[in-house]
Amino acid sequence: MDMLCVGTLAIDSVETPAGSCERVLGGSASYFSYAAGFYTPVRLIGRTGYDWPTEYTQTFLNHRVDWRGVTHDSLAKSYFWRGRYLKDYQDRETLEIQMHGFDRYRPTMPDCYADSQVVFLAAAIPSVQLQVLDQCRQAQWVFADTVDMWIDTTRSQLLDVLARIDGLFINDVEAKQLTGKNNVVQAARCIQSLGPRWVILKKGEHGCFVLGPDTMLALPAYPSDTLIDPTGAGDSFAGGVLGFLCSRFRQKENDPKSLSQIDRKDMVQAIMQGTALASYTIESFSIKRLQQITFEDIQNRVSQLQSLVGH
Amino acid sequence: MDMLCVGTLAIDSVETPAGSCERVLGGSASYFSYAAGFYTPVRLIGRTGYDWPTEYTQTFLNHRVDWRGVTHDSLAKSYFWRGRYLKDYQDRETLEIQMHGFDRYRPTMPDCYADSQVVFLAAAIPSVQLQVLDQCRQAQWVFADTVDMWIDTTRSQLLDVLARIDGLFINDVEAKQLTGKNNVVQAARCIQSLGPRWVILKKGEHGCFVLGPDTMLALPAYPSDTLIDPTGAGDSFAGGVLGFLCSRFRQKENDPKSLSQIDRKDMVQAIMQGTALASYTIESFSIKRLQQITFEDIQNRVSQLQSLVGH
Repeated sequence: MDMLCVGTLAIDSVETPAGSCERVLGGSASYFSYAAGFYTPVRLIGRTGYDWPTEYTQTFLNHRVDWRGVTHDSLAKSYFWRGRYLKDYQDRETLEIQMHGFDRYRPTMPDCYADSQVVFLAAAIPSVQLQVLDQCRQAQWVFADTVDMWIDTTRSQLLDVLARIDGLFINDVEAKQLTGKNNVVQAARCIQSLGPRWVILKKGEHGCFVLGPDTMLALPAYPSDTLIDPTGAGDSFAGGVLGFLCSRFRQKENDPKSLSQIDRKDMVQAIMQGTALASYTIESFSIKRLQQITFEDIQNRVSQLQSLVGH
Repeated sequence: MDMLCVGTLAIDSVETPAGSCERVLGGSASYFSYAAGFYTPVRLIGRTGYDWPTEYTQTFLNHRVDWRGVTHDSLAKSYFWRGRYLKDYQDRETLEIQMHGFDRYRPTMPDCYADSQVVFLAAAIPSVQLQVLDQCRQAQWVFADTVDMWIDTTRSQLLDVLARIDGLFINDVEAKQLTGKNNVVQAARCIQSLGPRWVILKKGEHGCFVLGPDTMLALPAYPSDTLIDPTGAGDSFAGGVLGFLCSRFRQKENDPKSLSQIDRKDMVQAIMQGTALASYTIESFSIKRLQQITFEDIQNRVSQLQSLVGH
């Protein structure tokens, strides 16, 4: 089982009530692949510009991330995002987005990625997600994420994506925006009717809600008192969930029957891993906290989460 | 182990996005004692006016609620509240409050209540809570609730209450208001430092967070798609939690050592019971849904909650 991820590799400048940072490693694919890398090698597809620090690339190479699918654009800068979290972290403002050629980017799949079986289409222009999906001929599990911008501006292409995936990660506010339903259960059911069997609603500090085939799961977030920067928490969560599932699939590869279904127990474990990773991500800017922790740290936090919900 | 509750017995008129109702049974003590009545007899202290329908009284008498501590004021009406929930149930407006003499009410404890060991001071004027507390000479476990009005207007008396109780139920927004902390963990720790060993934060649709001695617990709410009226959900939750604990204490009465502490496992079970009861309360106006269910229905929903969090 090999995992592929396509998404944004970005440079971020972020201001939060706890502090600020200038031009740090960011982007949906960065957070996802670093988190998933704790469980499984990740094949990355994305784009960087001429201002991309080589040390960022090295960070990923040292963490089981395959960089051969990343296009380096020597004529333009990297995708840049500047954002600010307002008091209490309840709202986020985007102060500046510089696509710097990212909107012209056409992802290409290296031959050595063609047999990827688990695919994550991180939040990006739906047309980019579809182009990658068209090239994933051996994909058995495709999960995607999306954000408000694509729901607003490219709804019909997004619906094409939804019809072709096994699972969607989406935050609760955007799920309501997508479906017009004000209730999370109704919104998740509505999304399920559009394609994905698994709908994984990310609720930030309130945890997650998962609707699967004949299954509902919900977990609180890890109760953290050291919130610094929530950027990337959702992508780290997805990385933990899919990274863990991918490693479970690998264990099951000798049993083709079980391969065809995600077990409810596997999903419980997976969202605990995702929750633990997200809880580390928010403890610092960028992926800095993730770079300090070990697989054992994550498992310790998973144990705390199990205890938190009375296991 | 006998349970005593003091709080508001009210007549409510409520408007929600799902409908409206005029002059129905309401009040913190009503929801609490009906919910707790599924587990244990409840001794009620409160006040009704001359417009209080006798059928409401009968509803409680039929549900193991002892009415001998309720003062009937034949010169004034019952406490009246008119409220409206705005779109998405995110906000609640109080349109009208008529104290109708409730502010002059001085609770008196019947002799037959004097040996109560578990006491719940439902949200009310802190001076009323203190007057009852002064009369509970055999109380072993005292829990209280409060709301924004008392935090704003009678903070110093509220702090006196906090210093004398074992546990506080409070919603997350009000916990932040009380402590000035924007983080729920920090707010709960701060409240703990003011007195109560157990701090039970009610987060509405996002479940609950519990801080106890060397313990943290968190549960999502039951994922309901039939929200009609959230009024009383928090009081029903508290009724389920304390009703269950009271019945557990009774089982332990032969072992005086275990009586002195709430077991972490007991609290896990208790908040599941409370969550189940709150989830029924919101499915109709007033206590109508609670009147339709059985103890077995509650246990079925608790099983669903256990499954929801991966037990």
